[in-house]
Amino acid sequence: MKILGVDPGSRVTGWGLVETDGWDLRHLAHGAFKLGSGELPTRLRVLAESLDEVLAEHRPEEMAVEQLFTAKNARSALVLGHARGVVLLAAARGGLSLHEYTPMQVKSSVTGYGKAEKQQVQAAVATQLCLREPPQPFDASDALAVALCHAAASRLSQRMAAGELPGALT
Amino acid sequence: MKILGVDPGSRVTGWGLVETDGWDLRHLAHGAFKLGSGELPTRLRVLAESLDEVLAEHRPEEMAVEQLFTAKNARSALVLGHARGVVLLAAARGGLSLHEYTPMQVKSSVTGYGKAEKQQVQAAVATQLCLREPPQPFDASDALAVALCHAAASRLSQRMAAGELPGALT
Repeated sequence: MKILGVDPGSRVTGWGLVETDGWDLRHLAHGAFKLGSGELPTRLRVLAESLDEVLAEHRPEEMAVEQLFTAKNARSALVLGHARGVVLLAAARGGLSLHEYTPMQVKSSVTGYGKAEKQQVQAAVATQLCLREPPQPFDASDALAVALCHAAASRLSQRMAAGELPGALT
Repeated sequence: MKILGVDPGSRVTGWGLVETDGWDLRHLAHGAFKLGSGELPTRLRVLAESLDEVLAEHRPEEMAVEQLFTAKNARSALVLGHARGVVLLAAARGGLSLHEYTPMQVKSSVTGYGKAEKQQVQAAVATQLCLREPPQPFDASDALAVALCHAAASRLSQRMAAGELPGALT
């Protein structure tokens, strides 16, 4: 199963692609779409086209993104929402199932600590995916982290369903 | 020139289409896309497809929307932003120029009073466009209002540029 993690932003949107068979994890690709300095509609079009290219090339089945987080203020939430809307639209059009996790769930899953710094997330992502270098920029590292979080959650629920974990017996 | 006014919402998005030759105004069509009760990505896909149909059928050259307004809270701004992002993406993809006005500019332009109620906006829209019935629902009436506001602003700037108004002489 291929999972595309996305970290939406109205200037830079990070993405990261991992593959899992339910046990092993494999890094496929990651990057960041730089949306330029144009007007917002133009940047959203660049985002949509860039995402479509990644979807067409890698054909992931699932998408993972961070849940609606508490923005500093209504205005920054509104602008972030524009980019996130374009990302969710790409998921729906591409037939990908969407999975959302809070920032704390992602950090906790990847580093074991729900308030980890970006550098710690980056290092943990590199370790789990056996990368020689920490994934750059942070937008891409954060996108890989949410993909890893979803891979771990999927694996756990598969094992629970298969009766392999004590939780399934209670 | 055909102007599409849009009032974005994550459950219902209103739209209204007017045509102007710089002097006369003509109502072409209006309506509201009901995005259903599905998950947000599904609703955004319905919005994108519905907008694309209107763009393909009527081929407007310009789009008018209300500017980033001050939402009650960050969460509602974030959700509204998703729908607005899909609308702005449709404008960019369709090659429409985008024009934004504050809610107060729209109300002031259409009714003469910047704090008009929705019913007053609806009545003023019906009068200006010679409609027999007030346009329904409010989402569509608000969309027609922002289209009318842009038509008035365009007409004013055209006349200023042509030296027909005193303002052009100063």
